[in-house]
Amino acid sequence: MSTLLDDYSHKRFNILTGEWILVSPHRAKRPWQGQNETVNNEKRPSHDESCYLCAGNTRINGEVNPEYKDVFIFTNDFAALQSDSPDFEVNDGLLIAQSEKGICKVVCFSPDHSKSLADMTPGEIQKVVFAWQKEYKELGDNPLINYVQIFENKGAVMGCSNPHPHGQIWSQSTLPNEVDKKNTQQLNYYKKNGISLLGHYLDQELEKKERIIYENDAFVVLVPFWAVWPFEAMIVPKTHKSNILELNDEEAYLYAEAISVLTKAYDKIFNTSFPYSSGIHQAPTNGKDNSHWHWHMSFYPPLLRSATVKKFMVGYEMFGSPQRDITAEKAAQMIRNLI
Amino acid sequence: MSTLLDDYSHKRFNILTGEWILVSPHRAKRPWQGQNETVNNEKRPSHDESCYLCAGNTRINGEVNPEYKDVFIFTNDFAALQSDSPDFEVNDGLLIAQSEKGICKVVCFSPDHSKSLADMTPGEIQKVVFAWQKEYKELGDNPLINYVQIFENKGAVMGCSNPHPHGQIWSQSTLPNEVDKKNTQQLNYYKKNGISLLGHYLDQELEKKERIIYENDAFVVLVPFWAVWPFEAMIVPKTHKSNILELNDEEAYLYAEAISVLTKAYDKIFNTSFPYSSGIHQAPTNGKDNSHWHWHMSFYPPLLRSATVKKFMVGYEMFGSPQRDITAEKAAQMIRNLI
Ligand SMILES: O=P(O)(O)O[C@H]1O[C@H](CO)[C@@H](O)[C@H](O)[C@H]1O
Ligand SMILES: O=P(O)(O)O[C@H]1O[C@H](CO)[C@@H](O)[C@H](O)[C@H]1O
Repeated sequence: MSTLLDDYSHKRFNILTGEWILVSPHRAKRPWQGQNETVNNEKRPSHDESCYLCAGNTRINGEVNPEYKDVFIFTNDFAALQSDSPDFEVNDGLLIAQSEKGICKVVCFSPDHSKSLADMTPGEIQKVVFAWQKEYKELGDNPLINYVQIFENKGAVMGCSNPHPHGQIWSQSTLPNEVDKKNTQQLNYYKKNGISLLGHYLDQELEKKERIIYENDAFVVLVPFWAVWPFEAMIVPKTHKSNILELNDEEAYLYAEAISVLTKAYDKIFNTSFPYSSGIHQAPTNGKDNSHWHWHMSFYPPLLRSATVKKFMVGYEMFGSPQRDITAEKAAQMIRNLI
Repeated sequence: MSTLLDDYSHKRFNILTGEWILVSPHRAKRPWQGQNETVNNEKRPSHDESCYLCAGNTRINGEVNPEYKDVFIFTNDFAALQSDSPDFEVNDGLLIAQSEKGICKVVCFSPDHSKSLADMTPGEIQKVVFAWQKEYKELGDNPLINYVQIFENKGAVMGCSNPHPHGQIWSQSTLPNEVDKKNTQQLNYYKKNGISLLGHYLDQELEKKERIIYENDAFVVLVPFWAVWPFEAMIVPKTHKSNILELNDEEAYLYAEAISVLTKAYDKIFNTSFPYSSGIHQAPTNGKDNSHWHWHMSFYPPLLRSATVKKFMVGYEMFGSPQRDITAEKAAQMIRNLI
């Protein structure tokens, strides 16, 4: 079977979203004559006067960042969601809209401008995990907020406008599309089987091993069978936990270690600071029974063939389905070999 | 109502996919410090010796292109889908995959290397429409093919590897995700109301006018209420037709005219050859009753603020929902003013 998946086009089912992706393994051979990204491998200084995220610097709105030592969090100066907007609804035939409130924050991972998560120690990353826990709790407790999306855009090619190590949190009143899909799939599975969808999936993967990148006592890092991005990976807790608050300090450290191992390996693939968007999908904070949720963190890195050639999700992907060339198994093997 | 939509974050419902998009109109003011795209406004020659799509040139696989005069179509030398692959299925617990067969073609719009659709006359574009009709018919008649996706990636920023004016057709055995969603939404509406979803939607838009860009006797060009990309637009036939074969020659001309008007206006927005991915969504060729389908063509252009600053669909958009800053109404007005 596995040779067929290695050689012929097929589609794979994403158990978490209920959608399919097209895999064309034979296509990895095509030559590339398209756009090359620019790479900046220049070493950055530890402090940059002109960076609005560095400690002690003044932001565009005039606020001064504190002399922070590890993690620093503030409300986004250009927030896409606001907490004080009016409530309204459009229900005019086929024109349907609803006001959406929320709170957007910026999370600086380190005062050191020159670093990324890949350059930080698991101990330093653990502090970021603690900060995420605190924010998930506080924002989640706000009656306005029913879902907290923690994410990072890393690298200019991922629309990141500042190389200072940082991520964001957009929290809001309703569930965004992707979360809603995963909510439905996990709920249906849990109701039917009484065990978590991802827990059951992990059992299968840990037995097969071909898509496993790394594991420690509490976490598995793997390339999901249905991965879309060339080197997509997922960090999953081994036991069924619905959100990051369920991690004790030691587990928070092991989670940080998993992030560290994966991001360090990523940087070695093309010998460059590896761009990606990452995000944590976890239980909504809507006060409902969310025990069907098994939280996880995904990494969507765009690079395909080199530090300058990325995968474009364009025409067919926008109008049809996501499409990939190298298989999940091959990608897992490549990353695993770099640990 | 409309001032609220102009000023405060809200989500809008896409009636065709059943998904939501987040609109943050107040956010258009944020400064941009991120990646700038490179623009190449250099005039290209009408014939380029090194272009594998120009007439008379030799392709990588050794085939020689004919001395074509208008449209030229061939099977993709690096096809993502193949028609002669074996049938197989993986149904191993939560690992689910299926072989997928298909036929991928390249459609050269013109022998003139220097042109894009925006530089061609409606009469020239009409020949492209005739070619699309022929391919939709022929591929659709093939028992292997149940869906024909016609699309174009224009511009290096959209992963297009060759500036020669061309599009692609990926046809396959099953319905891709986006088509499947639109199939469901249109079917449900048609069953319930006995009229086409888009037909009903058009009635509303033609009355309100604020999102209309252009219309002729057979087509409307508009920015859909739920548009995702900054200058996204849709071309919709005024009468309910399920696929492009239902166009007579005059309607094919009027369709070509709509494409011409829109693409010319696009080029004026930032005074550059405007990149986009476009695609036609129409009835599957699966032999079922597809009278609920109302075909349409969508344009997804990434540029946001200038010829070099695009919208990035990254972190929040990948993990949550698509997000836009300028409203559909504002974008429609800007494009309309350039016609
Ligand atoms: O087929 P091309 O032009 O080489 O490739 C382009 O379009 C394809 C279909 O949208 C995408 O899968 C590729 O990522 C993109 O670079
Ligand atoms: O908030 P930033 O970093 O300015 O902006 C970046 O991330 C956002 C959230 O994914 C996206 O909406 C923007 O397109 C992207 O450029």
